[in-house]
Amino acid sequence: MAPVTLDELNRMDRNGFVAVLGEVFEHAPWVAETAFAARPFSSLNALYQAMTDAVRDAGAEPQMAFIRLHPDLAGKAAREGTMTADSKLEQASAGLDRLSEDEFAAFHRLNNAYREKFGIPFIVSVRRHGKESILRQFEQRLRNDPATERDTALDEIFRIVALRLDLRVAAPDRLKVHGRVSTHVLDTHRGSPAEGVAIEFYEMASSGNARLILRTMTNADGRTDRPLIAEQPVPIATYELRFAVGEYFERQRATTADPPFLGVVPIRFAVAEPEGHYHVPILITPWSYSTYRGS
Amino acid sequence: MAPVTLDELNRMDRNGFVAVLGEVFEHAPWVAETAFAARPFSSLNALYQAMTDAVRDAGAEPQMAFIRLHPDLAGKAAREGTMTADSKLEQASAGLDRLSEDEFAAFHRLNNAYREKFGIPFIVSVRRHGKESILRQFEQRLRNDPATERDTALDEIFRIVALRLDLRVAAPDRLKVHGRVSTHVLDTHRGSPAEGVAIEFYEMASSGNARLILRTMTNADGRTDRPLIAEQPVPIATYELRFAVGEYFERQRATTADPPFLGVVPIRFAVAEPEGHYHVPILITPWSYSTYRGS
Amino acid sequence: MAPVTLDELNRMDRNGFVAVLGEVFEHAPWVAETAFAARPFSSLNALYQAMTDAVRDAGAEPQMAFIRLHPDLAGKAAREGTMTADSKLEQASAGLDRLSEDEFAAFHRLNNAYREKFGIPFIVSVRRHGKESILRQFEQRLRNDPATERDTALDEIFRIVALRLDLRVAAPDRLKVHGRVSTHVLDTHRGSPAEGVAIEFYEMASSGNARLILRTMTNADGRTDRPLIAEQPVPIATYELRFAVGEYFERQRATTADPPFLGVVPIRFAVAEPEGHYHVPILITPWSYSTYRGS
Amino acid sequence: MAPVTLDELNRMDRNGFVAVLGEVFEHAPWVAETAFAARPFSSLNALYQAMTDAVRDAGAEPQMAFIRLHPDLAGKAAREGTMTADSKLEQASAGLDRLSEDEFAAFHRLNNAYREKFGIPFIVSVRRHGKESILRQFEQRLRNDPATERDTALDEIFRIVALRLDLRVAAPDRLKVHGRVSTHVLDTHRGSPAEGVAIEFYEMASSGNARLILRTMTNADGRTDRPLIAEQPVPIATYELRFAVGEYFERQRATTADPPFLGVVPIRFAVAEPEGHYHVPILITPWSYSTYRGS
Repeated sequence: MAPVTLDELNRMDRNGFVAVLGEVFEHAPWVAETAFAARPFSSLNALYQAMTDAVRDAGAEPQMAFIRLHPDLAGKAAREGTMTADSKLEQASAGLDRLSEDEFAAFHRLNNAYREKFGIPFIVSVRRHGKESILRQFEQRLRNDPATERDTALDEIFRIVALRLDLRVAAPDRLKVHGRVSTHVLDTHRGSPAEGVAIEFYEMASSGNARLILRTMTNADGRTDRPLIAEQPVPIATYELRFAVGEYFERQRATTADPPFLGVVPIRFAVAEPEGHYHVPILITPWSYSTYRGS
Repeated sequence: MAPVTLDELNRMDRNGFVAVLGEVFEHAPWVAETAFAARPFSSLNALYQAMTDAVRDAGAEPQMAFIRLHPDLAGKAAREGTMTADSKLEQASAGLDRLSEDEFAAFHRLNNAYREKFGIPFIVSVRRHGKESILRQFEQRLRNDPATERDTALDEIFRIVALRLDLRVAAPDRLKVHGRVSTHVLDTHRGSPAEGVAIEFYEMASSGNARLILRTMTNADGRTDRPLIAEQPVPIATYELRFAVGEYFERQRATTADPPFLGVVPIRFAVAEPEGHYHVPILITPWSYSTYRGS
Repeated sequence: MAPVTLDELNRMDRNGFVAVLGEVFEHAPWVAETAFAARPFSSLNALYQAMTDAVRDAGAEPQMAFIRLHPDLAGKAAREGTMTADSKLEQASAGLDRLSEDEFAAFHRLNNAYREKFGIPFIVSVRRHGKESILRQFEQRLRNDPATERDTALDEIFRIVALRLDLRVAAPDRLKVHGRVSTHVLDTHRGSPAEGVAIEFYEMASSGNARLILRTMTNADGRTDRPLIAEQPVPIATYELRFAVGEYFERQRATTADPPFLGVVPIRFAVAEPEGHYHVPILITPWSYSTYRGS
Repeated sequence: MAPVTLDELNRMDRNGFVAVLGEVFEHAPWVAETAFAARPFSSLNALYQAMTDAVRDAGAEPQMAFIRLHPDLAGKAAREGTMTADSKLEQASAGLDRLSEDEFAAFHRLNNAYREKFGIPFIVSVRRHGKESILRQFEQRLRNDPATERDTALDEIFRIVALRLDLRVAAPDRLKVHGRVSTHVLDTHRGSPAEGVAIEFYEMASSGNARLILRTMTNADGRTDRPLIAEQPVPIATYELRFAVGEYFERQRATTADPPFLGVVPIRFAVAEPEGHYHVPILITPWSYSTYRGS
């Protein structure tokens, strides 16, 4: 679905407007209807503000009813296909559509415990988390009190909404929903960017399992042509970059050790702010390297 | 078996001398008998020289006969238990006593190809190699010509002998048969050695499998109480050090990111010289690290 | 004098054209006159090519006559004011207008030795060199043979010309005459760019004397608002960046050592390619730093 | 004067004992006489404890009288030669015997201000400070109250005493009075210690003036044969190490840039704990370096 421009939205009638934005809030087209009154919107941020204000101004009871309309994570709605298309894609992004039986059981247990304690489904913006981070969130939030969780649920809904708006509406301004992972390989043996270094980028499970996200290669500036992650939140998780440094220096004839001291250099790091920029460069020689969170 | 001192050896009669050193050369007690004539030995290196000279001076035919007395690697002798005790321990050190069926078949195939081409068993000082390095040696050496391989076989036998002498004879001097792997963790966030950093040390297979060699912890000087490997050759292989940097800085309350940017820092490196000193330190902050081959 | 656009140049008549470009080649308006025939120029590089081709095609004798029209460096013409305005500014850029008596004598001696050996003045694009580099060039080139020096003189004239064109003509394309020095300060103690670090940038003489080029401060991205040198060749010379790291970390309350281990961090480096990009960042903690030629 | 052993001291009679230790406390042989009663001393630390206890137990009035017996820093006693030999050497170690007129005037003014406020001379263990650090101490301590300064004066006297005992008495144990500055140069371009790197070691004044302490060279292990400072306190001051990295890499033919990017690498650092170990290594390539406070 191609995004609608803000100009187009501003010129739409009520039906058209609600057709585009009705599902931004899960099963709650009234939010879009309320926001319609505030047209025209000078910016995407203004639209976002209008929609979230509609929820904030609705009062406690409607808010709770509204929260209860959300599906469980990896729950029955997912299995039965009664979620919105957005929810389906979001849950799939964190791998919640392909859980093992044990993982499904864990989610089931936590969903029930949460609903029992708070009377609402557990809501989290899953695009901002890896699977293990969602489970950690679950465990942590189960310890909160109901008022805190009501606020947290709304905050998470607003984050979900921001991401849905970002996909649906093209505007000159952007919502702050995107993070970024990038890298750079500098060859301090010859004092220049390292071109042609093969890179693999993985998401790491605490079990040690590595899920390949992408393979790429450094260009003449020692960078990758595209960021490793961009134009989306970076899920909270542990990642590993693997740089084929040994092959690179072999091509340079820069080392005679066989096997070379450094073959594949793994750099493992965790992301804590999905909207942050994680620039993770390495400076390499055949005998040493450094890495750091850059900017 | 406690080592014999060089003084004791020098005072022994022929029978005693051969009882101690007869098996240093596999199934060839005549080497010890020949060396006996050169007593007394002023140093362990002089004894080593006398024994290897006995082989060098024996002439081509006896050398070939002597080479042929050696067992295949991971071969029939290993299965049937007809190797010397030294050979058994040596082959076990490289894991050749616990091969998978596929690996066993690979060794079988390479042994036969080697014997067919050169008429001698494939001989390598296995204490100086990890399993994969032995297979690489096999492939490379199969491409040599017979004269080169006869010389290489003798060189490898002399390396085996040096290690056997090193275990059997205590002397003021040492043979150059020992390498060393050590590490050091420096906290450049607070400008001091990092104490209490948990370390795991692995041998890495090219499949990605990691075999734990040891677990340890840094002391007040940021070092480990004992080197990671010492008093032996460091097998040619790829290794990985894993430093629990995240836990360390959490105890220091040095970072507030959750999860911390750096949790477990893996440093992967390969050893090419079994008799070399591989000092592999890291300089760490919660947001950066460096490593290098030190001294 | 505001630059003329390439379009304006292309529309000018012969007199106008020569008025603008006549002095680009020292005392040789005929070069501009010859190039006039090749109008219109599709790019600045095409204009440059046409003008240098006019000299290349002129034949050996006119070239030598033309070379001889150039003034000595720091010579009589400089003292008597008979150089072109360009030459004056260029010689001043390298400090040749404020030499000590000893330096003046050295230039005088070298100028005479050069003229005596080669029959032409010593020509060098002084904007590409610091004063010491010019003297080193002098010594080195005195050892060449006459043919090499004739070629070198023309090459240097073409470099001078490229810089003069770059100042006189605004075009969509650029000549490759600009280098760049930039820096970046990254605080690996807190994992972010270091804002508010005072920087001094010096040119260093081999005597140890430091000539301040500029003072600046890092911004929120850890960079300086403007490059330290840009839009000109970077003179071949030794430079020193001095970073007030101690004051920065004191404001951060990141260290309790008094005085701090690192107060002012000096980074000294030399530039060998005036058209190169020298990015010289530092990664700092209160107890450590790294620097490298970046990109 | 060769040091006396602790055994010899323990066997001396009262006169001999006081002859050796009488001047350890300036103009106060009674301290040695009191300590004499506590013989024999099991360690140098026990002797030090006995002597300082004698002062601690003497009561406030004798302590003040005793403090007043100390000479001014760089004062009249220094000029007239009425200080003890120890005091002379100590003041000379900080350069107080060769002050400029301005510096002398500054000390004179501060001495008078201090005496006027506290009624005692300003006492500091000058071997622990560079000249500028003494002046900073002066300024800071002038702001204290009299009780604090009485305690500080005694502490400083005890530090002076510890250093005097350290020079006079040889014992199996040592007093904690020694610091250390050392370095190490590691070539991460070729993965080995850097041998033959010329090093200059300077004390830096805040004016920028550099006083050469020593010239040295790295050995095959990349270290200097002797520490740069050892067996004494390291005066609180700013230091600079200058490494001739460019010449080193030129000999290695490791770089083709002319001039090389890195010629002389200056590392400037300050010492805050005179009894600390300042290990200041560098890791170098022709295009990068790192330094840190090591251990």
